[in-house]
Amino acid sequence: MNNFEYKNPVKILFGKGQIAHIGKELPADTKILVLYGGGSIFKNGVYDQTAKALEGFDWMEFGGIEANPTYETCMEAVKVVKREKIGFLLAVGGGSVLDAVKFIAAAALYENGDPWDFLSQRNKINVERALPLGSVLTLPATGSEMNGNSVISRTSTQEKMAFSSIHVMPQFSVLDPETVFSLPDRQVANGIVDAFVHVIEQYLTYPVNAPLQDRQAEGVLLTLIEEGPKVLANRQDYDAAANFMWSATIALNGLLGVGVPQDWATHGIGHELTAYHGIDHARTLAIVLPGMMDIRRKQKEAKILQYGERIWNITEGSVGERIDKAIQKTVEFFESVGIPTRLPDYDVPAETIDRIEARFTNRGTLMGEHRDIDAAETRRILERQL
Amino acid sequence: MNNFEYKNPVKILFGKGQIAHIGKELPADTKILVLYGGGSIFKNGVYDQTAKALEGFDWMEFGGIEANPTYETCMEAVKVVKREKIGFLLAVGGGSVLDAVKFIAAAALYENGDPWDFLSQRNKINVERALPLGSVLTLPATGSEMNGNSVISRTSTQEKMAFSSIHVMPQFSVLDPETVFSLPDRQVANGIVDAFVHVIEQYLTYPVNAPLQDRQAEGVLLTLIEEGPKVLANRQDYDAAANFMWSATIALNGLLGVGVPQDWATHGIGHELTAYHGIDHARTLAIVLPGMMDIRRKQKEAKILQYGERIWNITEGSVGERIDKAIQKTVEFFESVGIPTRLPDYDVPAETIDRIEARFTNRGTLMGEHRDIDAAETRRILERQL
Repeated sequence: MNNFEYKNPVKILFGKGQIAHIGKELPADTKILVLYGGGSIFKNGVYDQTAKALEGFDWMEFGGIEANPTYETCMEAVKVVKREKIGFLLAVGGGSVLDAVKFIAAAALYENGDPWDFLSQRNKINVERALPLGSVLTLPATGSEMNGNSVISRTSTQEKMAFSSIHVMPQFSVLDPETVFSLPDRQVANGIVDAFVHVIEQYLTYPVNAPLQDRQAEGVLLTLIEEGPKVLANRQDYDAAANFMWSATIALNGLLGVGVPQDWATHGIGHELTAYHGIDHARTLAIVLPGMMDIRRKQKEAKILQYGERIWNITEGSVGERIDKAIQKTVEFFESVGIPTRLPDYDVPAETIDRIEARFTNRGTLMGEHRDIDAAETRRILERQL
Repeated sequence: MNNFEYKNPVKILFGKGQIAHIGKELPADTKILVLYGGGSIFKNGVYDQTAKALEGFDWMEFGGIEANPTYETCMEAVKVVKREKIGFLLAVGGGSVLDAVKFIAAAALYENGDPWDFLSQRNKINVERALPLGSVLTLPATGSEMNGNSVISRTSTQEKMAFSSIHVMPQFSVLDPETVFSLPDRQVANGIVDAFVHVIEQYLTYPVNAPLQDRQAEGVLLTLIEEGPKVLANRQDYDAAANFMWSATIALNGLLGVGVPQDWATHGIGHELTAYHGIDHARTLAIVLPGMMDIRRKQKEAKILQYGERIWNITEGSVGERIDKAIQKTVEFFESVGIPTRLPDYDVPAETIDRIEARFTNRGTLMGEHRDIDAAETRRILERQL
C-alpha cells in the first residue's frame, strides 16, 4: 500500500425528510445564497422543502446554472455574492450545481487575478480559502456532495477543466433518496455510469497489495450493477434509490482511492468530448472506458483479470479472452442502462480525434496511473471507439 | 436503509515515516501534553521519532496509562493538564491511551461535576466540549484513532463504561504500519479479533436492504482473515501490517454502520468480563460472540447465513447446520490466532455469570439490535461458553 493522507469533514444527512433539518447546519448570522440549475427543483418539491427549511434565515437565490457549468455563469454568481455580501452558499441540485458553487465559493474570495487560475493547466493556482457551502443533492452521480472536486467549462475557449481543494468541501450535504423518484431515465443512467467509472478510475490500475481498497471498490461496483437497474425499472423503489445514492457518494468520497494508484485518463479524455460536442459527462466516460481497457490491456492486465473474475465471474479462457470478455461485459452493462459506447452513436466525427490529439500535444498532456497516456495514445483509445 | 447522519473529520496520515510529519498538524502557540502507556514506545523507536517531530514545540509528557485505562489515572492527568495550562493532547500508543486521552480532553474542560458523568449509566451527561487532541497509533485494534468513542474503567467500583462524542475525535491520527513490527503475538491477535468483532457488531443483525454496507463490512472481515495471519507469521511484512492497520481503522470509523442496525451486546457483556477479571478486551469478545451467535440464531438468522456464505463459503446443509458451521468457523478463526473462546480457558468461574446477571438486572440493561438482550439472556449467552 502507498502512503496517503485522508481527511473528509463533510457531514452527511441521509434519508427521507432530511431536507427539513438543514436549518441546524446553517449559519444564522449571515446572508445565504441558494443556487440551483434549470428548475427541476420546482417540479419535484425540493425547492419548496428547502424554502420551508430556510424560514427565518436571510436568504436569496441564483438559478440557471447549466449542466457542465460554465465559468461565465459562475462569474455572474460571483458578482451577486459580492454585491449582496453573501456569507454562505447552498447548492440545491446535482453535481453541476455543486461544482459551480464550489468554484463560486473560491472565486468570491480570490483577489489576485482571474479565478480561472484555479483551473488553468499552465499556471494553476491552489485555492487557499473559500466561502462556506452546503448542499441538497438531487441527483446521485458525481460524488461532488462529499469531496472537494469541481469541473468547470469555459464557453469562450471550449475548455473543461477540474480543480480540487479541501476548502470547497461542503460543510454538509443532504442526500434524500426521494429526490430520485422524479428523475428521467437519462439522468439515472448517467448517474449509474458516472459512479461506476469513478470507482474504475481508482481501481483498474495495477496491484499494490491493497486488498481492502480493492474489496471496497468491488463492493460499490457490484451494488451499482445490482441496484442501478432496479432504480431504472421502478423509480419509486426507495431502497434501490437509497442504495444507488449512497453508492454514488462512496464512489468518490476519496476513501476508495487512498493508498492505491489512480488513473483518471478516461475522465481527461471524456472532458474533451463534452467540451467539443456537449455530450453528457457520463456518456463520454462510457465511450472512452472500453477503448482505455482495450488499448491499455497490458498495463492493466492484473486488475482487469481481477475485475472480470470478481465483478463478472469470468474465470475461463486465456488472459486475452478474459480481458475481451471483461470489456464486453462492461459495454453490455452500459448499453443495458441505455448508454451507447461508440463515437458514431453520438455523431462525433473522426476529425474530433485530430483536434483532441492536437490539444493534448499542445498542452503536453500525460495521463493515467503511469503518466504515460499522451496525445498519440489518446488517439488510439478514441479510434478504438469509432 | 435507515436514515442516518455521518461526519468524521479525523485527518489520517498513513504510512511509514509519517510520524515525522506531525509538526504541521500541531498548534505552535500552546503547550502540548504527550501521553503514553507502559513504555513500549521507548523500545520501538516511536518515542524518539515523536520527540524529534516535536522539536521546537512547547511540550511535556505523562506516561503510565494502563491497558483498560482507569478513571483514577485519567484524573491524575487532568490535574497535570490544568496545572500546566495544556492546550493540546497527543496520544502516543494503542486504543487504551487514545481512549484515556479522549476522556482527559473532555474532563479537563468539564466544570459542572464529576467527569464520570460522561460514562455513568444512570445520569449520563453529554460531552459538550473538549481540548483538541491528536494521536500516533502504535497498535491496530480499537479504531479509536478515527472515531469519538472511549471506554474507561473505574477501579473502585469494578466498572467499565463507554462514551462517544464528536468533540473527542482526534484532529489527526498517524498510522505507521512499521509500529506493528515490534508487537508481541498476543497484541496482534487481540487486534485482529477486536477489529473483526467491531465489524460483526455493525453487520450481524438483521437485513434492512443495505447491500453496500454489507459488502463493505464483508470486505473488512475477508481482509482481516487473509492479512491477520500473515502479520502473525511475519512481523516484518510491511504490506500485511498496513492492510491489517487500515482494516482495523475502517472497522470502526463509523462508515460500516451507517443506515443499518447495530448490536454491541457482545461488547457490553465483554466489558463485564474485563471489569471483573481483567481479561484482555478482544479476548472477552472472542468468548461472548460464539454464545451470542448461538443463542441469538433466530433473531440473526438471515445475516448469519449471509455471513457464512460470503465469508466462509458455507452453502450446504439445513439452516441450523449452516449456522452451526458459521459459529464453528468463527471459533476456529479466533483459536487459529491463539485466542480461546470458553470461560474456563480464562479461569472464569460460573459465579461471575451470577454477578453479571445481577448487575444487569440492577441496571435494567437492555442490549442488542432489538434492545431485548436482558440479564437473563446474558446468562444464557455466557452459560453457552462454560
